[in-house]
Amino acid sequence: MKHYRALIVTLGVSWLAIAGPACADDGYDLWLRTPKAVAGPAAVTAIGDSATIRLAADALRRALPAGTPAVTVATAGDPQVAALRLPFAGLGDEGYLVRRVSLGGRQVLLVAGNSDRGALYGAFALLRAVGDGADAAAVTLRSAPKVKLRVLDHWDNLDGTVERGFAGQSLWDWWSLPDFDDPRYTDYARANASIGINGTVLNNVNAKADSLTAPYIAKAAKLAAVFRPWGIKVYLSARFSAPIELGGLKTADPRDPAVAAWWKAKADEIYRAIPDFGGFLVKANSEGQPGPRDYGASHADGANMLAAAVRPHGGIVMWRAFVYAETDPEDRAKQAYSEFKPLDGKFADNVLVQVKNGAIDFQPREPFHPLFGAMPKTPLMIEFQITKEYLGFATHLAYLGPLFAETLHARTGRKPGETVADVVDGSAEGHRLTGMAGVANIGRDRDWSGSTFNQANWYAFGRLAWDPDLDPAAIAREWAGLTFGNDPQVIATTTAMMAGSREAVVDYTGAFGLAHLMATGHHYGPGPWVADLARPEWNPTYYHRADRGGIGFERGASGSDAIAQYAPSVARQLAKPETTPERELLWFHHVAWDRRMADGRTLWEDLVAHYDAGVAYVATMQSQWQSLRGKIDAERWQKTATYLSIQHREARWWRDASLAYWMSVNQRALPAGVAPPEHDLAWYKAQSIPYAPGHTS
Amino acid sequence: MKHYRALIVTLGVSWLAIAGPACADDGYDLWLRTPKAVAGPAAVTAIGDSATIRLAADALRRALPAGTPAVTVATAGDPQVAALRLPFAGLGDEGYLVRRVSLGGRQVLLVAGNSDRGALYGAFALLRAVGDGADAAAVTLRSAPKVKLRVLDHWDNLDGTVERGFAGQSLWDWWSLPDFDDPRYTDYARANASIGINGTVLNNVNAKADSLTAPYIAKAAKLAAVFRPWGIKVYLSARFSAPIELGGLKTADPRDPAVAAWWKAKADEIYRAIPDFGGFLVKANSEGQPGPRDYGASHADGANMLAAAVRPHGGIVMWRAFVYAETDPEDRAKQAYSEFKPLDGKFADNVLVQVKNGAIDFQPREPFHPLFGAMPKTPLMIEFQITKEYLGFATHLAYLGPLFAETLHARTGRKPGETVADVVDGSAEGHRLTGMAGVANIGRDRDWSGSTFNQANWYAFGRLAWDPDLDPAAIAREWAGLTFGNDPQVIATTTAMMAGSREAVVDYTGAFGLAHLMATGHHYGPGPWVADLARPEWNPTYYHRADRGGIGFERGASGSDAIAQYAPSVARQLAKPETTPERELLWFHHVAWDRRMADGRTLWEDLVAHYDAGVAYVATMQSQWQSLRGKIDAERWQKTATYLSIQHREARWWRDASLAYWMSVNQRALPAGVAPPEHDLAWYKAQSIPYAPGHTS
Repeated sequence: MKHYRALIVTLGVSWLAIAGPACADDGYDLWLRTPKAVAGPAAVTAIGDSATIRLAADALRRALPAGTPAVTVATAGDPQVAALRLPFAGLGDEGYLVRRVSLGGRQVLLVAGNSDRGALYGAFALLRAVGDGADAAAVTLRSAPKVKLRVLDHWDNLDGTVERGFAGQSLWDWWSLPDFDDPRYTDYARANASIGINGTVLNNVNAKADSLTAPYIAKAAKLAAVFRPWGIKVYLSARFSAPIELGGLKTADPRDPAVAAWWKAKADEIYRAIPDFGGFLVKANSEGQPGPRDYGASHADGANMLAAAVRPHGGIVMWRAFVYAETDPEDRAKQAYSEFKPLDGKFADNVLVQVKNGAIDFQPREPFHPLFGAMPKTPLMIEFQITKEYLGFATHLAYLGPLFAETLHARTGRKPGETVADVVDGSAEGHRLTGMAGVANIGRDRDWSGSTFNQANWYAFGRLAWDPDLDPAAIAREWAGLTFGNDPQVIATTTAMMAGSREAVVDYTGAFGLAHLMATGHHYGPGPWVADLARPEWNPTYYHRADRGGIGFERGASGSDAIAQYAPSVARQLAKPETTPERELLWFHHVAWDRRMADGRTLWEDLVAHYDAGVAYVATMQSQWQSLRGKIDAERWQKTATYLSIQHREARWWRDASLAYWMSVNQRALPAGVAPPEHDLAWYKAQSIPYAPGHTS
Repeated sequence: MKHYRALIVTLGVSWLAIAGPACADDGYDLWLRTPKAVAGPAAVTAIGDSATIRLAADALRRALPAGTPAVTVATAGDPQVAALRLPFAGLGDEGYLVRRVSLGGRQVLLVAGNSDRGALYGAFALLRAVGDGADAAAVTLRSAPKVKLRVLDHWDNLDGTVERGFAGQSLWDWWSLPDFDDPRYTDYARANASIGINGTVLNNVNAKADSLTAPYIAKAAKLAAVFRPWGIKVYLSARFSAPIELGGLKTADPRDPAVAAWWKAKADEIYRAIPDFGGFLVKANSEGQPGPRDYGASHADGANMLAAAVRPHGGIVMWRAFVYAETDPEDRAKQAYSEFKPLDGKFADNVLVQVKNGAIDFQPREPFHPLFGAMPKTPLMIEFQITKEYLGFATHLAYLGPLFAETLHARTGRKPGETVADVVDGSAEGHRLTGMAGVANIGRDRDWSGSTFNQANWYAFGRLAWDPDLDPAAIAREWAGLTFGNDPQVIATTTAMMAGSREAVVDYTGAFGLAHLMATGHHYGPGPWVADLARPEWNPTYYHRADRGGIGFERGASGSDAIAQYAPSVARQLAKPETTPERELLWFHHVAWDRRMADGRTLWEDLVAHYDAGVAYVATMQSQWQSLRGKIDAERWQKTATYLSIQHREARWWRDASLAYWMSVNQRALPAGVAPPEHDLAWYKAQSIPYAPGHTS
């Protein structure tokens, strides 16, 4: 009884706050909820006085259920721990182990790593295991990250907008930095550390030079100080022309010594403020950004010049391969390979070339990028988009774990069994500098990512960056338990919804490898008919090439021959429609509407069926979610229910608009029994969406 | 004991949430905190089944301390209540009374009004009284609002930005409306209802026509449905040229029957979606906005045409008098009067002319606008700016109650004893249609207004709109108790800080009626030297007219003669510097630097002293706030402490930059013992602030 009384007294003030509206379950806590009913402070001791070790111990105290055996957080170097001769070898500086041991005569659960960061990751791994229902006393864990740089790319502008951001303003309040340390910065760092993310690029790759001025360096330094004990380094996107804009130079030519000196001085200045600054991310000569090609220099020239500036400080450069020249008539899907493949071996050893998962731009489905495996001498960092620019913004439910895994697990054909993951984690060629980047879906919205289920994409990215071989279904199960609690019906239902949700988006926006069919600019909703934009490759018609007879972009030898960029074994498989996986058929080939598919129906019949399947999947998710009413807190339940109703309406919109357009092109009727589009094509063409979010550039 | 145990069980889930970071005291609850330690549900009964009565009862249940006597919420029309013969007469449809009565044989505290909205306001009045320490059993209240329309003007754009907004994105998520009913909309409505606000203009006066399209009407209708039971009507800013942009007409001339018909049809459309739509707010022929003057028609022609459109539905038009023509060389301070005074008597009876508190634009101090009292046949709605465009954005602490009251309590000189408040509340001329508007300081930031103390300005506006004669110091006390709790030291200290805080901003930005000295565009920080903008009245030098000999804008007969716009008795007093209040001296007169002031020092000496006093006041607030460490929750304390340190640095910046500039003009030394500016004038002129918030147009 006394226990309860004391609890009440302790909680007095905080509890009052929850009488108000503030503490409805608004999703702020992400997957970091306390897993059991009323938690009590578990007996957690920390060995060593690093801030990171203290944070690890605090995280455990805060969330371990009462009755958990005593826990000790430590590093391998502690003499008591060293004496245990545990298998720390091979864990590197970020791996961890959790073991029941006898320490100083006491049985404790030891959470330890070679570094304090390893111990921190171990603490969160323990919490995941316990959250998943494991008995803490029996937990045994040992893991090290397979990828070195696990980085979020924030496309956040200095004015607070976020390019392709659908979760509110930028988390960074540049205005009140560096003075004000918003507690939310710490909560952001904790969330990232809990899933192993160890780097964050603060500003948009479409960068302003201002981010490299002294005031903004001071602001970034404040964030770096908050993130440091959580094992997270800060990076900046660098505008290649900054020596002109800030330095008053006449050129940004990377071969000009004055330019190199400017960047060296700038790097020195940054490292004075941020001793562990991670380095630069650069988007050069792409979509209007300046770059070395402006001066006839190569991407390697540009990257190496920047790499030399950060090298003395241990920094690195992430150089994006996402380039397509507005003056190049070549198939856009080919341009990155054409430009970068010849540069293999030319990059300094602290440069990573950052390659998007596919060759176009984060479509609902893309074949893996042909550069993976094609530049063995260069560390290739993969770039995924966590924010759903092309998959329904924050509103649609689409679990991206399967999308990430689909690319990671794809076979490059360069070596027997080699996957994209092998290239990314460095095992293919023995690279030690490796990385995975995700374009963040995080903003100042209360639930961080615009919806509860979008949080799962942030989570899945972090988990896959730690281990690209993880099963996305297992990640979904883990996330659902941590996010909604361990009711088996809730976990079963939510993971069933998630499982096919990305495929449903593929289906209702255009299956079989169709891509880039969205409306112009904001990229929301259907626009397959758009054909009047200035550059050919801005138009959906460029990508689908539908005509009376057929549909698809011929990338075989009779077409753009992009297929030849793949390894011979892969290229051979893709060369013919018959051996091309159907899910990528129209990406690689232009085929007849009447083409007979594996299921015996025609392409047209199957395409229509996929549209209907996509819409039906969303309807199923709606009824699945309805079955959870009352089993999930009202606020999160209601928002998701509302968003699913929006998604259903818009899936139908995608389907109807697309079918109306295809029928206008192929002059075909719908298969028997299929519902006609609700409106005529003119109606769909007339729709416009002013003020769509995320369209800042 | 059982009681506590039950409490624990009930709270289980919610309490878990507060173990995480979500429920730190982040200011979300505003002044609606539970006033006493652990509250229990008081016995509250509601008579009648209106949603509003239920909300009133819920509010009381939620927040009344345990042990409160039984409370009954009802309307005067209920037979039991009517039988009591209480003094409901004169309370109108929004007033309330709270009385201890015998009802159905039971002693209850009756909370009632002639309407359910009156009862709702009564409920919040009771909570204020109890929060202020009153014994609920002894509370006796009776009040009716003196002003009919108590309205927030949101300068919120459809893209989510907020013009002059410093508290994050727009609260309205137009993207997910009308589908998603964000719980925050309800919390917004509750907060407003609790201080008597009964209207909200959703969109910026610099309006887009899109806000009048069907999709946006549906979005507004959703908000109206949420706000309705809280007694809050929705209004829209109307773009005067919408008949051209949306209707395809060739003109927006208000005398054109097709234009009038378009607006009538548009109003009908809006009222079908929002039956209690409040009406339109219009900024016409001002700062580039279209208006009737484009066609040679008058403001009255424009307002009356719109008024006719909403009249059948009971709507009104708020027509802004904030006009100054970019082609008119007349003293900007005179133009609104010159344009509107001749129109007195020409406006339809459902039009209010909305007049800013002063003749320029929400400066830290302005004399009252000469239109007040000068248009007796026209209801004049006063417009204050709650958001601190010119008083330090969200960062500086400035309690605006004294600013609002200073204007409201000013004597117009038109009738004996007549104040601006008498004009605004209609008592001067018997107008029944009356209003007070405040430009909102509300955004999606967690604490709504960007800082805890900015919440007080929202609060004070609401309370003064209910009763313009309230004492701002009493309002501050009330707010501080509700916001920080009833610790006498906390209340005494916070109210002492607030009391002189606005005057401190006047002092460190420029005392004695100096105005419009800020930097260009974003309006943050000093720019008294700016003289190169295209229009004369955009330049600070236009307003201060400082030269070697003196400083100030001569508005007497030898100058612009703006003083002649005031009533004769006021004009006589202002005619000469000797009889002009010193605090407004330089607004009305150009005087010598050596002019002897009331305290015996020269103007220059006094001006310098005021700069120093302003900076010193902020330093004092810092130490006052330090004395409250540990007496206020850590999160709100820390943010305010940080913001005060920013304010101190920037008050010094204003002082130093201004003094450096004045010295460059008047070639004078600083008085003995005064600290010189930290940098030279060139340094201050070279400062720039990219990406300042709130600068959207």
